[in-house]
Amino acid sequence: MSTTTFTPEALVERLFTLATFTAPGPGVTRLVYDDAWCAAHAWLRDEAASLGLAATCDAIGNLWLHDPALAPGAEVIAVGSHLDSVVNGGRYDGAYGTIAALLLAAELRGDVAAFVTCEEEGSRFPAALTGVRGLLGDLVPSTIAHLADAHGTRWTDALASARARGCASAPAASGERVPRLFRAQRQLELHIEQGPVLEAHGESLGIVNRIAGYRRLRARLEGEARHAGTTPMDRRRDAFAAAAEIALAAEVLARDAGPPAVATAGFASAEPGLFNVVPGAATLGLEVRHTEAHALDALADALAERARAIAARRGVTLALELQSGEAPTPLSDARAAGAGDLARSLGIPHRVMASGAGHDTMAFAQAGAESLMLFVPSRGGISHSPDEHTSPREMWIGVAFARELLARWAAERA
Amino acid sequence: MSTTTFTPEALVERLFTLATFTAPGPGVTRLVYDDAWCAAHAWLRDEAASLGLAATCDAIGNLWLHDPALAPGAEVIAVGSHLDSVVNGGRYDGAYGTIAALLLAAELRGDVAAFVTCEEEGSRFPAALTGVRGLLGDLVPSTIAHLADAHGTRWTDALASARARGCASAPAASGERVPRLFRAQRQLELHIEQGPVLEAHGESLGIVNRIAGYRRLRARLEGEARHAGTTPMDRRRDAFAAAAEIALAAEVLARDAGPPAVATAGFASAEPGLFNVVPGAATLGLEVRHTEAHALDALADALAERARAIAARRGVTLALELQSGEAPTPLSDARAAGAGDLARSLGIPHRVMASGAGHDTMAFAQAGAESLMLFVPSRGGISHSPDEHTSPREMWIGVAFARELLARWAAERA
Repeated sequence: MSTTTFTPEALVERLFTLATFTAPGPGVTRLVYDDAWCAAHAWLRDEAASLGLAATCDAIGNLWLHDPALAPGAEVIAVGSHLDSVVNGGRYDGAYGTIAALLLAAELRGDVAAFVTCEEEGSRFPAALTGVRGLLGDLVPSTIAHLADAHGTRWTDALASARARGCASAPAASGERVPRLFRAQRQLELHIEQGPVLEAHGESLGIVNRIAGYRRLRARLEGEARHAGTTPMDRRRDAFAAAAEIALAAEVLARDAGPPAVATAGFASAEPGLFNVVPGAATLGLEVRHTEAHALDALADALAERARAIAARRGVTLALELQSGEAPTPLSDARAAGAGDLARSLGIPHRVMASGAGHDTMAFAQAGAESLMLFVPSRGGISHSPDEHTSPREMWIGVAFARELLARWAAERA
Repeated sequence: MSTTTFTPEALVERLFTLATFTAPGPGVTRLVYDDAWCAAHAWLRDEAASLGLAATCDAIGNLWLHDPALAPGAEVIAVGSHLDSVVNGGRYDGAYGTIAALLLAAELRGDVAAFVTCEEEGSRFPAALTGVRGLLGDLVPSTIAHLADAHGTRWTDALASARARGCASAPAASGERVPRLFRAQRQLELHIEQGPVLEAHGESLGIVNRIAGYRRLRARLEGEARHAGTTPMDRRRDAFAAAAEIALAAEVLARDAGPPAVATAGFASAEPGLFNVVPGAATLGLEVRHTEAHALDALADALAERARAIAARRGVTLALELQSGEAPTPLSDARAAGAGDLARSLGIPHRVMASGAGHDTMAFAQAGAESLMLFVPSRGGISHSPDEHTSPREMWIGVAFARELLARWAAERA
């Protein structure tokens, strides 16, 4: 390829073009296998071809953009991100890492190959990270074939429709895993930070050496619905007051644990939900995150204990149900150290940091790859919103740094 | 009438018959002017006639059950309660005072007349206490004629339909007040307590000398919706955490103020309402009640001040909107003292207490009547529920006491 393609302008132009592939509505809505997604997929394959790369789909619509000389099943240095978005998301989440990977694969070629996962967000079907699990040969499609989206369309039918448009190869055999196209012993993902830390510290680059795990708990509290005017304060079993106290306890526990611990009460309701009735029941959504497994355990255990004590003191019953969870994932400390040395030598203001959000990279690392992520700043820490923003200059610092880093990784292998 | 009608059995039998006039579903649903309400109204008029009483409707369906010899416009000793219920309410709220008044008017006759208000609960149309306001000559029907129920039926059409079934007299002239049929200088209402206090203290009778006022506030909080995994605890503007803290502050303020202060957070929501998003907005319903005007003011002011401080500290904006309110209403201390003397002389375990809930009696007292209420215990403090319960014995203690009390009031006038 011509080196004139490896420019900030080439990155921004393609990033903004990718954002035009969206369902109607504010921001970007590009859900796996939908019309916008299929159009983006086809466009990306065309872009790769125009840059002299081969574009190879797997059976569920993941895409590898790679040197045509690369042999099937080869071990590659994988760089990439995901093609899907949340509903009404921004132009950068996933897309930045995807376009960056396209340019990097075209620039570096050889065994540096771009991956584009079909689905990471869990925004269409009730399952996230299905793309990378397929990419790594760890997904049996029949196990999720029955999942339906908000319109009742099943995963398997949505995939078949995308396949008919050239966005996936022949289906995996029934009960079998998605065939793996390449092996990735080293892997890199560029991504926007989706948080305020880099911006707040005036830093250009986050070198991500671990990804936080999380636990999501649904608390159901039941007390007594009573007349709010006639029931004295000392005779109440107020389920929402218990929920409110638990929400604040979660906040205090995370503050006391210190960064990178976070805890969030993301939703709540009180029943019957009237001014003049002491709530007889309440629901509360709780999430805790930490980058260290023992600390995540400790945080979740402490929260459960506090919640039980609060409920007991108030005479309210508590059912705590684990809705989902993910273990903290260490990335490659060696690769992070190397990246830190490189950033220092290049004079790039950076920090080694954890990711509070989950990413495709988790799955690579869990599968044994030497994995690393690079973050660029998110203005105002905003993500999953049309207001998501990273400047062209900030984006390019990440891409230019990744070229140097991947060139070194490739040289080590040679 | 025969004195055999003034018995516990006569009370219970009629109370349970009245409960059969209900819409389908759990408990009692008898909304003003609906089919069940009209049938109950007709039955009540028949019962009055069978006991030798006249039954006179006013223009909006309030009912007076009285000695036929009573002259129109006469000054009476009024005893009564309301005919309507909440949705899926119990058999006692309003009904107890209504049947008690029927028996008391039949037993005492002369100028002791029973009133039955058509509507008190505000459970069909978005306006409460419309019945008693009409009864007291303080309602201009055209001002509420346009109000619609959940099915879109207008108040004026619902009333016309009830009138066609004999449940109301000729309409008030356009723009005029509902004509008042009798004047009530002294007034009594028997009611279930709807709270746990009498039961908890093993007392049979509550002598109610004041009715709490209330303020209902809707708090709207706006912070920043941010990724729950990537936004450190010290960089959050969590609107729901602020709401939770305000809910608990309300509880503490009421506890610190001591009885009869109460404060309740009856509903709450967090937006967008996901596990992994720090809530950017929240709504909270707050109610405070007190029996003294200055104390109600102080409680409401302190809550607003605390809420503003909490929101400010968290960087969250707060809009506090007063949704509705009612001033505390003192009843007759002299009548309460007389009732206390009588209860003591009869050896009835009792207490002088406030009502935390609003009642028709508020409107009588505010109109200048010497008003009093009598409470009988509510099992478990439960009300506005199919589980509402007061034993026949407990109900009868109230009715028998009311006969002695009203007989004394009547004797004073004679």
